[in-house]
Amino acid sequence: MAFDPPRGDNVSSSGSIAFTAKLIECESYPCHSGVLKFRNVLINEGGGYNPETGVFTCPLDGVYYFIVHASVYGRGQCGIFKNGEKVVSLYHTSLPDKCSQVATVSSVVKLSKTDEVSVNLWGPGRNDIFATADNDTVFSGFRLG
Amino acid sequence: MAFDPPRGDNVSSSGSIAFTAKLIECESYPCHSGVLKFRNVLINEGGGYNPETGVFTCPLDGVYYFIVHASVYGRGQCGIFKNGEKVVSLYHTSLPDKCSQVATVSSVVKLSKTDEVSVNLWGPGRNDIFATADNDTVFSGFRLG
Amino acid sequence: MAFDPPRGDNVSSSGSIAFTAKLIECESYPCHSGVLKFRNVLINEGGGYNPETGVFTCPLDGVYYFIVHASVYGRGQCGIFKNGEKVVSLYHTSLPDKCSQVATVSSVVKLSKTDEVSVNLWGPGRNDIFATADNDTVFSGFRLG
Repeated sequence: MAFDPPRGDNVSSSGSIAFTAKLIECESYPCHSGVLKFRNVLINEGGGYNPETGVFTCPLDGVYYFIVHASVYGRGQCGIFKNGEKVVSLYHTSLPDKCSQVATVSSVVKLSKTDEVSVNLWGPGRNDIFATADNDTVFSGFRLG
Repeated sequence: MAFDPPRGDNVSSSGSIAFTAKLIECESYPCHSGVLKFRNVLINEGGGYNPETGVFTCPLDGVYYFIVHASVYGRGQCGIFKNGEKVVSLYHTSLPDKCSQVATVSSVVKLSKTDEVSVNLWGPGRNDIFATADNDTVFSGFRLG
Repeated sequence: MAFDPPRGDNVSSSGSIAFTAKLIECESYPCHSGVLKFRNVLINEGGGYNPETGVFTCPLDGVYYFIVHASVYGRGQCGIFKNGEKVVSLYHTSLPDKCSQVATVSSVVKLSKTDEVSVNLWGPGRNDIFATADNDTVFSGFRLG
């Protein structure tokens, strides 16, 4: 799906600001820390989410809601970050018998224009967050008002 | 709870379009593929959700958010579908030691009037998605704007 | 974080009604039944959520959405309650091999002014719901319209 780059006014024709993006399979099991990039953009009303950076940049002051679903096969750890600071986080393991499972966390976040929100990784070694056609890892956000 | 059939204008007195419906116990562990019907309707503002079919039919163009929570005892697999095509999906197992667990997935979805959204099942054999008084399996959706 | 007590009009400067609050670490593994108090308030637009009681009191008639994420190490059970009655519930175990996992449930709820919504506990003995810096247990809600 093509990425619709942010425009000057950053507001969609519907007036909504809302996005959903998914992790692509070949970026499963990330070993890095920092921002997790969800490159498969399903919808990006308002153009706030950038799949090249994984960062949602607030186009309009307001109260927003963000949610992440992580498919985990082993140990998964991530959080929703605002301007580089953790807001909420999840840690989910299916050890010692590995299973495909799904963990979710979300938060309401108040944002000013240009504030940045992303899903970040940290912790030692490989993160067992993954994606397949049947196991989605998903980042969504939308403006409440 | 009685089902409030869709009316001509399909918009509630509050102006909101929002629903939540739950799987009923006797339809736990479905063996079929296709739409999962959530027959216990908690709320159905705007009348878009039909518990007889399990399908939400969009009454008003806009950007919506849908979320499903599946209680799983074994292997559960489902997804949120728009007009019969998968938007996001989850696969959650608690094998080999079965446990009662909960898996969640959601997405923002842009809809035009008469577009249909449902939770669908697929995959081989029985789906270990279930419901009891304490273990809910829930489908919700609401219009963002 | 300081608690902003409800004001006369109970509506924030943004016009939004939305909150997120987290369980604090020292209140992990609750042995009581009844309301679970999320004392760490991240945001409380409209002042409806009271961390001293754990209860959201509706400041304005409307349709709301509530979601709870429970970090579980063993057996966790909770639900979203309206005026003391269960709306939706979750039961999640990671036994016999304990794991840190996350379970989520949510619902759309129609409220009149002064209606109360909370996350409640029940069941025998200790509830293995917990919080650490990396494992959040989170209660959020917001008004849809």
